[in-house]
Amino acid sequence: MPELRKDPITGRWVIISTTRAMRPNDFHAVASQPRSNGEGCPFCYGREAKTPPEILAYRSNGDGPNSSGWTVRVVPNKFPALGIEGDLNRQGEGVFDKMNGIGAHEVIIETPDHNKTMTDLPEKRIEDVLWAFRDRMLDLRKDTRFRYILIFKNHGEAAGASLEHSHSQLIALPIVPKRIREEVDGARQYFQYKERCIYCDIIRQELESGTRIVAENEDTVTLSPYAPRFPFETWILPRRHESFFEHSSSRVYENLSKAIKSMLVKTDTVLDHPAYNLVLQSAPLQENTQEYYHWHLEYMPRLVRVAGFEWGSGFYINPVLPEDAARHLREASMEAKVGS
Amino acid sequence: MPELRKDPITGRWVIISTTRAMRPNDFHAVASQPRSNGEGCPFCYGREAKTPPEILAYRSNGDGPNSSGWTVRVVPNKFPALGIEGDLNRQGEGVFDKMNGIGAHEVIIETPDHNKTMTDLPEKRIEDVLWAFRDRMLDLRKDTRFRYILIFKNHGEAAGASLEHSHSQLIALPIVPKRIREEVDGARQYFQYKERCIYCDIIRQELESGTRIVAENEDTVTLSPYAPRFPFETWILPRRHESFFEHSSSRVYENLSKAIKSMLVKTDTVLDHPAYNLVLQSAPLQENTQEYYHWHLEYMPRLVRVAGFEWGSGFYINPVLPEDAARHLREASMEAKVGS
Repeated sequence: MPELRKDPITGRWVIISTTRAMRPNDFHAVASQPRSNGEGCPFCYGREAKTPPEILAYRSNGDGPNSSGWTVRVVPNKFPALGIEGDLNRQGEGVFDKMNGIGAHEVIIETPDHNKTMTDLPEKRIEDVLWAFRDRMLDLRKDTRFRYILIFKNHGEAAGASLEHSHSQLIALPIVPKRIREEVDGARQYFQYKERCIYCDIIRQELESGTRIVAENEDTVTLSPYAPRFPFETWILPRRHESFFEHSSSRVYENLSKAIKSMLVKTDTVLDHPAYNLVLQSAPLQENTQEYYHWHLEYMPRLVRVAGFEWGSGFYINPVLPEDAARHLREASMEAKVGS
Repeated sequence: MPELRKDPITGRWVIISTTRAMRPNDFHAVASQPRSNGEGCPFCYGREAKTPPEILAYRSNGDGPNSSGWTVRVVPNKFPALGIEGDLNRQGEGVFDKMNGIGAHEVIIETPDHNKTMTDLPEKRIEDVLWAFRDRMLDLRKDTRFRYILIFKNHGEAAGASLEHSHSQLIALPIVPKRIREEVDGARQYFQYKERCIYCDIIRQELESGTRIVAENEDTVTLSPYAPRFPFETWILPRRHESFFEHSSSRVYENLSKAIKSMLVKTDTVLDHPAYNLVLQSAPLQENTQEYYHWHLEYMPRLVRVAGFEWGSGFYINPVLPEDAARHLREASMEAKVGS
């Protein structure tokens, strides 16, 4: 059973998960793998039996579960960081606190095509992925042990992807991750003072000035944040106030998928197909944050290695002005470069 | 002039520093550089004129500044992330806050020998480096614009080192970095409740149980923290309560250099010479935190790339139990492997 442990000084919870039991030798530098043609890939058509049985899939051919013919497929992670069965069993250990590593860890396979990245997918297929996120969130939030559902995508080896076939991951957690907690707390403080949502205020100010806007459509705004940690960090926010991603309307998903497609084509063009992380920031499940928390998507390309000591200090040096990043992306053609 | 910008939601300050003006093309993946023999290295003997004039150096040969013959040499960073001249000029920009990027950015060259890592240095030479940290901190803390002095070391390309010649860096800041702020706040809360330093309590409990202890000597304790973010993350703490690194006694520096040497030899042996970051966590300069903040050194080897989404969520999954890491390090021989 994995364990959740709390750092007694900062209050950050960490998962200690030894499922893929690693010995010191396992950490020796891994050489970059050339892109394969998908031979043996468990996420391709015809290898559905190589993953744990599916939790959800969209199929229009009427075939049964775990057959081919799907467009999006959700399966449990074969090496889950958390276990789904059991009680939290919170307890102390002297000055320390821990609980059982209860949670869900799922993989959203975004396309059957081994050679397509998310950038290559048509908008309608990206929309399917967003619907899969929503369906899983609505299902998992019924489990009252969970406080947060974290959805993220690691694209490329440098961003931590261990399988090259395009996929996202979902982790349902019995705690709220520290970064989300900070955002929620910051947004609450602002609301208490101003009685307005800080994200709505940011969107209003950014649309007025325009210098950090990358793109906009009827339902979303894509921008470079004012104080980004990373060069070309980019956020997509719903234009109207919404706390829970999973409660958004179908029109928002439709326009969000257009915004994602546009952002990925532009960043792939300007930055030459970088490795990146996408993280969905939605409201904590069992808290009343609707008035002031505003869900959004964060895109962080892995361009610089200078980020070493940032882990120890929480301190970031960014060599690119967000105004410059936004201009580069704004001006980038929407014609996707083919290949890389 | 670099700029400090505050994220209005989380309150984190970020440096936007375009000194090394980077264009999108500059981010294309950099191939690993083979280790050179130091040709053209500005940190080697005889090339003192290739750095900005030195701020501090230890020489026993009686020669003047910027000549050879030094053991440790401190110079301004040639591409500083912050500028030393000017006022902070704090101001708002609608919902946002910013100030001028005032600060010091220095490089501590730890040895004249291009081919020696910190692990290779004799304990006495590591002690010299610690004295250089102290001397620079005592000098810079006289400048009341500064709130924090951050000292860190990036070893190896994967840890963000851009020059291979062994060195550390110092950044004096007009703000307290977020991670330090969290630690100080957490330690204060504990102190208010218990009237004891949380680090002292951790040391006491860890020494009693022994399972996470890596090594100890008269003045320091080396341990795997209870809730580490990274596999083989290791902390060295002074055994007796001390807030400011720069106010420690010469005996503590002597024993700390022994602890550092031992930790680096052991981690180099067990993990086969990993890239790593070392960060010194000392008390903020202009705050009264002496009763509850306890300085320490954090060692974080860069072993896993799985850390992608952690940046977006503040959420960490660690595949190694700290008890196992401590045991591996405890049992590692102190005989340094030669070469790599």
